[in-house]
Amino acid sequence: MGKLLFTFVALGLLATTVVIATDADPINDFCVADLTSPIKINGLVCKNPATVTGADFAFTGIENAGDTNNSLGIAITPGLPGVSYPGLNTLGLGIARVDIAIGAVVPPHTHPRASELLYVVDGELYTGFVDTNNKVYDTVIRTGDVFIFPRGLVHFQLNIGKKPSVTIVILNSQNPGVQLIPSALFGAQPPIEEAVLAKAFGISPSEVEIIKKGFGA
Amino acid sequence: MGKLLFTFVALGLLATTVVIATDADPINDFCVADLTSPIKINGLVCKNPATVTGADFAFTGIENAGDTNNSLGIAITPGLPGVSYPGLNTLGLGIARVDIAIGAVVPPHTHPRASELLYVVDGELYTGFVDTNNKVYDTVIRTGDVFIFPRGLVHFQLNIGKKPSVTIVILNSQNPGVQLIPSALFGAQPPIEEAVLAKAFGISPSEVEIIKKGFGA
Amino acid sequence: MGKLLFTFVALGLLATTVVIATDADPINDFCVADLTSPIKINGLVCKNPATVTGADFAFTGIENAGDTNNSLGIAITPGLPGVSYPGLNTLGLGIARVDIAIGAVVPPHTHPRASELLYVVDGELYTGFVDTNNKVYDTVIRTGDVFIFPRGLVHFQLNIGKKPSVTIVILNSQNPGVQLIPSALFGAQPPIEEAVLAKAFGISPSEVEIIKKGFGA
Amino acid sequence: MGKLLFTFVALGLLATTVVIATDADPINDFCVADLTSPIKINGLVCKNPATVTGADFAFTGIENAGDTNNSLGIAITPGLPGVSYPGLNTLGLGIARVDIAIGAVVPPHTHPRASELLYVVDGELYTGFVDTNNKVYDTVIRTGDVFIFPRGLVHFQLNIGKKPSVTIVILNSQNPGVQLIPSALFGAQPPIEEAVLAKAFGISPSEVEIIKKGFGA
Amino acid sequence: MGKLLFTFVALGLLATTVVIATDADPINDFCVADLTSPIKINGLVCKNPATVTGADFAFTGIENAGDTNNSLGIAITPGLPGVSYPGLNTLGLGIARVDIAIGAVVPPHTHPRASELLYVVDGELYTGFVDTNNKVYDTVIRTGDVFIFPRGLVHFQLNIGKKPSVTIVILNSQNPGVQLIPSALFGAQPPIEEAVLAKAFGISPSEVEIIKKGFGA
Amino acid sequence: MGKLLFTFVALGLLATTVVIATDADPINDFCVADLTSPIKINGLVCKNPATVTGADFAFTGIENAGDTNNSLGIAITPGLPGVSYPGLNTLGLGIARVDIAIGAVVPPHTHPRASELLYVVDGELYTGFVDTNNKVYDTVIRTGDVFIFPRGLVHFQLNIGKKPSVTIVILNSQNPGVQLIPSALFGAQPPIEEAVLAKAFGISPSEVEIIKKGFGA
Repeated sequence: MGKLLFTFVALGLLATTVVIATDADPINDFCVADLTSPIKINGLVCKNPATVTGADFAFTGIENAGDTNNSLGIAITPGLPGVSYPGLNTLGLGIARVDIAIGAVVPPHTHPRASELLYVVDGELYTGFVDTNNKVYDTVIRTGDVFIFPRGLVHFQLNIGKKPSVTIVILNSQNPGVQLIPSALFGAQPPIEEAVLAKAFGISPSEVEIIKKGFGA
Repeated sequence: MGKLLFTFVALGLLATTVVIATDADPINDFCVADLTSPIKINGLVCKNPATVTGADFAFTGIENAGDTNNSLGIAITPGLPGVSYPGLNTLGLGIARVDIAIGAVVPPHTHPRASELLYVVDGELYTGFVDTNNKVYDTVIRTGDVFIFPRGLVHFQLNIGKKPSVTIVILNSQNPGVQLIPSALFGAQPPIEEAVLAKAFGISPSEVEIIKKGFGA
Repeated sequence: MGKLLFTFVALGLLATTVVIATDADPINDFCVADLTSPIKINGLVCKNPATVTGADFAFTGIENAGDTNNSLGIAITPGLPGVSYPGLNTLGLGIARVDIAIGAVVPPHTHPRASELLYVVDGELYTGFVDTNNKVYDTVIRTGDVFIFPRGLVHFQLNIGKKPSVTIVILNSQNPGVQLIPSALFGAQPPIEEAVLAKAFGISPSEVEIIKKGFGA
Repeated sequence: MGKLLFTFVALGLLATTVVIATDADPINDFCVADLTSPIKINGLVCKNPATVTGADFAFTGIENAGDTNNSLGIAITPGLPGVSYPGLNTLGLGIARVDIAIGAVVPPHTHPRASELLYVVDGELYTGFVDTNNKVYDTVIRTGDVFIFPRGLVHFQLNIGKKPSVTIVILNSQNPGVQLIPSALFGAQPPIEEAVLAKAFGISPSEVEIIKKGFGA
Repeated sequence: MGKLLFTFVALGLLATTVVIATDADPINDFCVADLTSPIKINGLVCKNPATVTGADFAFTGIENAGDTNNSLGIAITPGLPGVSYPGLNTLGLGIARVDIAIGAVVPPHTHPRASELLYVVDGELYTGFVDTNNKVYDTVIRTGDVFIFPRGLVHFQLNIGKKPSVTIVILNSQNPGVQLIPSALFGAQPPIEEAVLAKAFGISPSEVEIIKKGFGA
Repeated sequence: MGKLLFTFVALGLLATTVVIATDADPINDFCVADLTSPIKINGLVCKNPATVTGADFAFTGIENAGDTNNSLGIAITPGLPGVSYPGLNTLGLGIARVDIAIGAVVPPHTHPRASELLYVVDGELYTGFVDTNNKVYDTVIRTGDVFIFPRGLVHFQLNIGKKPSVTIVILNSQNPGVQLIPSALFGAQPPIEEAVLAKAFGISPSEVEIIKKGFGA
């Protein structure tokens, strides 16, 4: 089960490798990110606009399925300005392709800085979110359907179809962040103190340790 | 060519039938729109949250192709909170499916209040936008590709493939608005004064009249 | 352990009883909430300003300690415009007093719509948050100290002192929301499907059921 | 008619020479732009505040009429922080003086990132805008009157008086952008494909070419 | 000198009669205010859009000079959606005409919710603002010139010309508010406690009382 | 009374030493300010995130009382990202401890860019604010109570208790600014013209000079 941590960490990179960005309204027509700049601000530095072409605004990185051959059975391929799609910088939108193997789960997670629209390109999913009163809003969606996850709330997907599912997710921030709850709690480094997790989940310290091991901790 | 106006007006409904909405940050977990309320504000009134279920957050209205059997050869099927998808209210995102017949064009248009991400579900398109210095940023995109149109700038799509194209567009406003330039200028009611259009385009008044007739004016 | 759910639900009320509010910039000098209005919008309706007095802007509800005699050993007393402090409406701030018994934990939780400043009125706490790369930022704070939790990220507190602790937390939203992760996942209603939780935490379905029972599910 | 393009390009400079700016709320008292900085961000870099004086906040560049001796018969003189008025940086406002010869037209155009208030210093104008339902809201305004153009919508002015008109326009962005529709479509470089324009306007390819020539293309 | 208070109160109405408005981004094309609605929210309720015409967006209320025959020698004529110009609602801009008699002063004041651009239609003014380090940025401006006052900072104007001055001011809020400092402190009701003012200004209680009398208190 | 100016200037430093910051929504998990950077923008440059630890988010600078042995009898100890608490950068909140000697006054002042919540750690205060209609909203608050001052409006505190008071204030901007009205008007440099102050307060030029002397001018 050691791969669990590996996968989670890879997903975590979505947000933290793009540590400098801003979702204020754009002021310029565009500001294609210059990923070579050493300057770190609340926003990515722009390339010289004279060097920008139409190709800067296209993104071809999600044409193909990601590799779901890992412990979770999922692959998230981001189109974010700090990672793979510099043309999105300052425009207030992020995108990703999510591939889910048959029966696999995208673990409960939050996006700290955005709401998310999910579009099912192909497949059948059980999905939902939990509101701040612990009420679950869930349903089944199929090819061609859409679901909305409100900003910051815990949500999840489960592929209940008979084939791998393909979904496209769009979020209204150029760096929405993703916090996978199980690994954020049980796979964090340095580890969260055992007492915090034991008391919070109503389990014993040894049970905490067992779960942690699943995340390589 | 009288259908041109008809089509344009139908598209125009996207925005103006949802006259009351707001893209301020959400404050509540959600606020599913109550489309029966007579109160008109800068935002849609919420349903009683106790009556909300998971189904309110799903949208199944774009599973199937729209009817492109019209003068333009395109169909735009919106998922907007004031029209067809009340669960999006206050969450800062809108969606639509755009079907384009072989060789057909989505005319140059703007979204006054949003940037737009376009995802090609199927097909091959020539697309681009014009910046405020009259420079064009265009390219060809195919199945699985993405393109971004910055807020407010004129853009267009042309189906250059050998089959009808299917695209999903997501905008970072719950009511982005769409202003199709040719019909906004030549099909407007009451008509814009002939002198304005003739001088602006460097054509004669009679040429203005000819173009206007194409839009039923 | 049945009290766990009871407590969590009570805390959950913080956010969902104030389902209609907005954190857009204020436009008026003030807009004291009219909690008797039936109109539900993305913002609370204002009282007649002619009836407003200085007392509307004061809040005396956190002078005394809350009752920590419950399964978690904590008490959260909110000062939010939809609950107890109508004068805050439209002004972009919320407040709460948090009392924590010796050794007790505020479980890992998020605020979906705000950053939080914590001020220690009295006591000694181990606290921290987890970033989206699963890195923990933790420390010990004491009487007179302050800690900041960035918007939307999971965080927690543990009273490591020799007496009950008293903290004041201020958030930059009038309805920040609070999502206690353990109860949002294991105490939610209707329950999240067992397969989702088992796969996400790398535990068996029966272990999921055991944890759920701790939350009364 | 070759001057048409020349004029349009000059106007286009309004926006694209100020490619880096932001309309987020100001945080500092002021941030007078340092136009010599090579750093390109979503916002202009500030001068050392110790060198700022009262004169930085005054703008004398629109005391006199612009030169309307060109093919359009109009002159737009901007007061924008990236061009001529660095003191406006971060403060969310832009200004321009617009001179219009007798009978001349400011072509239909949009501002992608702002609403606009127009104040008539002297003259008589027919003006209006088109909403997203292709309805025109037009009227005649005279010396001392004001008109508002909502964010992003197409609008125009025509001098119907017996003398040159003088107007002052103020927009709620420091870089609102201006997109003159006729030149954005028919004078763009590289040219928009002929098929797009022909189908969009319901005219023949040869008619497209004729209009393009008017814009020097 | 009893008129001082009268004048100040009249100016104060600018803001407080428009107690319900919002400066969030507009979502609809427009939302002309319905001033007859009893509903009080953080934003003005919209008229039925079907009844809106071009005239709703024009404002003719500042064609003529206001009456400066009062103790201060100034007249402020507002164009604000809650008072006189409903078409501005939701569009983020406010306007006013300010007439100043020869030698008269617009007292030091702030706008709590906006920056302000001042355009001199006619006259010669000494003007400036104070930053939060008590440094003054002042200058002399004349017909055709512009000055910017950053959000929230104290500023003032003095007519130093040989004729009455006419200025147009535009602010980036539909209800910026105006707080005239002398009357806010010495003419307030109920009065601010004498000790607060005496200690703050370093004057005796009897001096406080003398100044208060000038404001009718 | 010469110390008055000294004190005021010290307080003024709160805002102007942090001339570069932004309150746009955060995009990254955090952006701890790098106070050594020479780059001045509308926002503080970030430290390398790899060097950030939990301690960066804690602030211990207000554990102890400030020195109130000055002419005003007050001490303001700020926790702001540009001054003393870099971890707050981009997170939209600022904090300060305010100590007030028995009988002392925090002079009427504004925060140009934030609303403020005041929490009384210890003591008894008369406090209030003035709205834009010159109406005062005042009350008495005691240990454990809270008061809210709306954005930009003049407010004040007076210690009416029998011991020094301790309050914590939190504002919803990382650089809210503070403008102490008496020193902004009578202690400003260069001085505001005598005529402006005399006419505004309805006092003689010699009375203006006497008050100015109290501020060292």
